[in-house]
Amino acid sequence: MCEANAYLVENDKEQLVMESVDLIEPEGNDTWRLVDIFGEQRTLRGRIRRMELVDHKIVFEAPAD
Amino acid sequence: MCEANAYLVENDKEQLVMESVDLIEPEGNDTWRLVDIFGEQRTLRGRIRRMELVDHKIVFEAPAD
Repeated sequence: MCEANAYLVENDKEQLVMESVDLIEPEGNDTWRLVDIFGEQRTLRGRIRRMELVDHKIVFEAPAD
Repeated sequence: MCEANAYLVENDKEQLVMESVDLIEPEGNDTWRLVDIFGEQRTLRGRIRRMELVDHKIVFEAPAD
């Protein structure tokens, strides 16, 4: 399966925020709805910095306040 | 491998713009650099509408002018 892990970079630190993400949809400005392969959802504030699909990695960065 | 196909929705029509995409990075406002697994690159104008990773699908929509 080709789900990915979602990471958030904040203060130069990259942390895993959700594993096995299947669906990602925008929910307004710099806000995203993530749904994993088990149907669990979460909302993430940030911008997409990089997607590395072959490496199953989606990296968000916290929005500048 | 977990590359995806990139689609662009324009005037309600979804068209395939690039196959086997590995890397996606922002290149400024509503502009994205896509790199496929063969190293081919292209730039795409649009916003992310939806990612369906298990289905290998990234859907962009053309930005409102």
